[in-house]
Amino acid sequence: MINFQTSPDQYKHWKLKIDGPVAQLSMDVQEDATLVEGYKLKLNSYDLGVDIELSDAIQRLRFEHPEVRAVVVTSLKPRIFCAGANIYMLGTSSHAFKVNFCKFTNETRCAMEDDSHHSGRRYIAALNGTASGGGYELAIACDEIYLVDDGNSAVSLPEVPLLGVLPGTGGLTRLVDKRKVRRDRADVFSTLAEGLKGKRAKDWGLINDTFPTSKFQEAIDARIAQVVSLPADENAKVNNLGHMGIKLNPLAFESTDDTRDYKYVSLKLHREKRYADLTVRGPESDLPTTPDDIQELGDNYWALRAFRELDDSLLHLRVNEPEIGLVCLRTEGDIDNVLALDKTLAANRDHWLVREIVLNMARVLRRLDLTAKSFFAIIEPGSCFAGSLLELALSSDRVYMLNNPDQRIEIATSELNAGAFPMSNGLTRLQSRFLAEPEKVDEVLAHKDIFDTEAAEEAGLITFAPDDLDWEDEIRLAIEERTSLSPDALTGMEASLRFAGPETMDTKIYGRLTAWQNWIFQRPNAVGPQGALTNYGKPTQAQFDYKRT
Amino acid sequence: MINFQTSPDQYKHWKLKIDGPVAQLSMDVQEDATLVEGYKLKLNSYDLGVDIELSDAIQRLRFEHPEVRAVVVTSLKPRIFCAGANIYMLGTSSHAFKVNFCKFTNETRCAMEDDSHHSGRRYIAALNGTASGGGYELAIACDEIYLVDDGNSAVSLPEVPLLGVLPGTGGLTRLVDKRKVRRDRADVFSTLAEGLKGKRAKDWGLINDTFPTSKFQEAIDARIAQVVSLPADENAKVNNLGHMGIKLNPLAFESTDDTRDYKYVSLKLHREKRYADLTVRGPESDLPTTPDDIQELGDNYWALRAFRELDDSLLHLRVNEPEIGLVCLRTEGDIDNVLALDKTLAANRDHWLVREIVLNMARVLRRLDLTAKSFFAIIEPGSCFAGSLLELALSSDRVYMLNNPDQRIEIATSELNAGAFPMSNGLTRLQSRFLAEPEKVDEVLAHKDIFDTEAAEEAGLITFAPDDLDWEDEIRLAIEERTSLSPDALTGMEASLRFAGPETMDTKIYGRLTAWQNWIFQRPNAVGPQGALTNYGKPTQAQFDYKRT
Repeated sequence: MINFQTSPDQYKHWKLKIDGPVAQLSMDVQEDATLVEGYKLKLNSYDLGVDIELSDAIQRLRFEHPEVRAVVVTSLKPRIFCAGANIYMLGTSSHAFKVNFCKFTNETRCAMEDDSHHSGRRYIAALNGTASGGGYELAIACDEIYLVDDGNSAVSLPEVPLLGVLPGTGGLTRLVDKRKVRRDRADVFSTLAEGLKGKRAKDWGLINDTFPTSKFQEAIDARIAQVVSLPADENAKVNNLGHMGIKLNPLAFESTDDTRDYKYVSLKLHREKRYADLTVRGPESDLPTTPDDIQELGDNYWALRAFRELDDSLLHLRVNEPEIGLVCLRTEGDIDNVLALDKTLAANRDHWLVREIVLNMARVLRRLDLTAKSFFAIIEPGSCFAGSLLELALSSDRVYMLNNPDQRIEIATSELNAGAFPMSNGLTRLQSRFLAEPEKVDEVLAHKDIFDTEAAEEAGLITFAPDDLDWEDEIRLAIEERTSLSPDALTGMEASLRFAGPETMDTKIYGRLTAWQNWIFQRPNAVGPQGALTNYGKPTQAQFDYKRT
Repeated sequence: MINFQTSPDQYKHWKLKIDGPVAQLSMDVQEDATLVEGYKLKLNSYDLGVDIELSDAIQRLRFEHPEVRAVVVTSLKPRIFCAGANIYMLGTSSHAFKVNFCKFTNETRCAMEDDSHHSGRRYIAALNGTASGGGYELAIACDEIYLVDDGNSAVSLPEVPLLGVLPGTGGLTRLVDKRKVRRDRADVFSTLAEGLKGKRAKDWGLINDTFPTSKFQEAIDARIAQVVSLPADENAKVNNLGHMGIKLNPLAFESTDDTRDYKYVSLKLHREKRYADLTVRGPESDLPTTPDDIQELGDNYWALRAFRELDDSLLHLRVNEPEIGLVCLRTEGDIDNVLALDKTLAANRDHWLVREIVLNMARVLRRLDLTAKSFFAIIEPGSCFAGSLLELALSSDRVYMLNNPDQRIEIATSELNAGAFPMSNGLTRLQSRFLAEPEKVDEVLAHKDIFDTEAAEEAGLITFAPDDLDWEDEIRLAIEERTSLSPDALTGMEASLRFAGPETMDTKIYGRLTAWQNWIFQRPNAVGPQGALTNYGKPTQAQFDYKRT
């Protein structure tokens, strides 16, 4: 079982050093500390275990070290920054694991960009040695890239020429869409196993600058000094730093073979039927309403804790429960409490901690959108799909709401549905839902009252509203039908239907790039007995079927 | 060998009937007239042969019948409109063929939308019976969809529930992005094998309207009368119809085992080295400069003929020469003649025939962008990469231009590079190239003189400029290197690097949707011995590996 929780005192591969407004995040991968057996993590290559630590470090920077303005990403190994994802790990992994591994590493890099974009923290890749493959992809997720000019160190994307696969952790997309490298140069660079060194790499826009070994540290220090002296972005101000960050404690849960119970989130697996119930319990009624009190409560504050637990549940389901194809999203609690919480969050979004809490909720909801499982929201008496929790229903592939006039079954919107939780495509979930009738977004948001089942159906917020007599059968049948379908066809279908409307760099990475990479990860030319990935590092050579497809 | 040329007198599966401003395009697939053996085209299901005729018909409407304002797409079979791509054909095809088949059918549907968008022809799907799978995808490529209400006929996308694959001919994307069907309803519809009938299909936005059998023809006729009575779009006016359309004659060519020579296009295959030279000869000096004279010349006019030949060559390479991985694009002729031609085209773009000629060039260039082969442009003395032919270089993955001050080696831009040939992403190729420095687009267009090699390199228009001494070795090495790489990795890489910048419905179809479909087409759950596609129509049932990926 893969565990996504960690903390700096447990890190094996990264050192996180905080010095006032500067964090140094240094990669120093321990060869033998692999997630599973069968490979060695040489040359700062990584497996999922290494990336779980990176993801944790970035998350902690946001909550525990809000005073940090610049993050230097570098390596403690001489002459090597990072060699990318470990090839032998990839070569021995199942297809499903490879795909999930890449998705998580992509989410981690997007989280770095989310931090930079929304919280104004500047990520500086200080390449003290060669950055190849995933190593360069990690660098290109940073805001700035500096490469040592030691006559040897290069940046490279050798996946196509050496391995017959893509640089699939956003590399190709960021090359042309983020750094806007000219397409013909991107083509040359991506087919050049040895990559490019200092001057040419700079001329082509692959790095920001290059400095000789003797001046490298000095130049990085100078750039950091510059960054931390710049006035903070208005939206990213770290205000009210009474106690400088809050601690993210481990998420406790109790588990049995088919349940996992956190404080606010419960997971119940129905393995033989290939679905799970994922229940989020809403907030209590006595939550704090001022930033100071929220900060005092820290990671016990519902909005942070419940969504951290939800995040951990989603990762657990993805990686440890591959045969669960459908997740029924449920909520329990009081709608008024959720709406009160949302009101507090909306009123205090300019406070650093509230901002981070809301941004984290947005990231978790995007993780849900990107999870390759079907989601049905099930709305019954006692549920609290309102405001921030209504997003769970809006993220779902379908929404079932019981229609029984004798019971209170209600949903509601809040101010937070109006823009606090953008999807990867930049739209809110309401905008995405009402692409055909954009005026409905405002209508639904303007409706300040709750929606009962009929009103919700009329407003277009739910898919089906079976009555009491049909409810159980209909839900049971819907679950049976869904879980009987081809899991691959569902993954491709959901990835297509969930992201109507505009595309962004993020959706290009999770859509176009990832889908092509997954295709290649299935092709004999990569993973067959004669494939390039299979034969990497062996005396045998790859033999391709040269038919172009 | 698959031949993409046909004409209405040779059609086996479609009837094209022109009646003044109305065309009726009726599907009547002949079961036994299949492209290859091994399946029967029952229930108006189609194979590539059927779609080649459809593509031809749409192309002819634009050139031969410019007076047509409304195109009714319907079926001559009772109670069935179209059952989509033939499953047995898909089940027995190679992966590469399936992928190329889907790409061509996608291009044909995009060509219908291109006609509607740019030439104002209204496509009306008159569903006189059930439209399932690719049948509904054909309908959704039309502007309006009307379904007979006979108690039986439905629209459906049964691919996911019945076959374990996607509706991959744009269906999922057009559902949520063109018709903007709500995502949860799209989810239900795409998993419902039997689809939806009249009223609900209309309520959900899947069709525009539904009429009982007795009133169906009358309603369609009324709608046609309405469409043809509307004033024509200003940009789509069919003016100057002196001789009402021009004839598209068959493209003659001579071929040997490794050459194919059309009038203006020559293809030379180097099969053992897995690359081809594709040479376009530029226009003569004495081309007509008025619309009347161009119309007189008809399909012999260079801009039409050369690009039709180029189109045919690309399709031939895709389907009949799968092992050719790289195409070296070359031109021969006089730059001034190309510039003179572009001037004529630019000056007369409001004439219907010139408009159609330019739109056709744009479509052919998009076909090139979407071809899963590498393209290198090779610029040598005697070449004429100017204006419309410069687009060949701008479409290429790399551009090599000989640097020899003793010879005339030149390229040039024309007004047509400024917007006449949009890529699928909506940008011009110059905009796509200079995403990092958008001001360069105007600079390059403002440069009225030719560019010699040094100026071209300085302007960022070429990739490499080897001198005389290195030229041959460098080109030979570049070819050898390129053709040694994994063809699958190259396909995924090129699909990622060619389309920087915004995404459109078209790029979503060719990127996200197609890549997922290709992935699924490789998965054992679809094509393995227990897969759904393999077992369709057999007494055996599909058995899935339910791991979600």
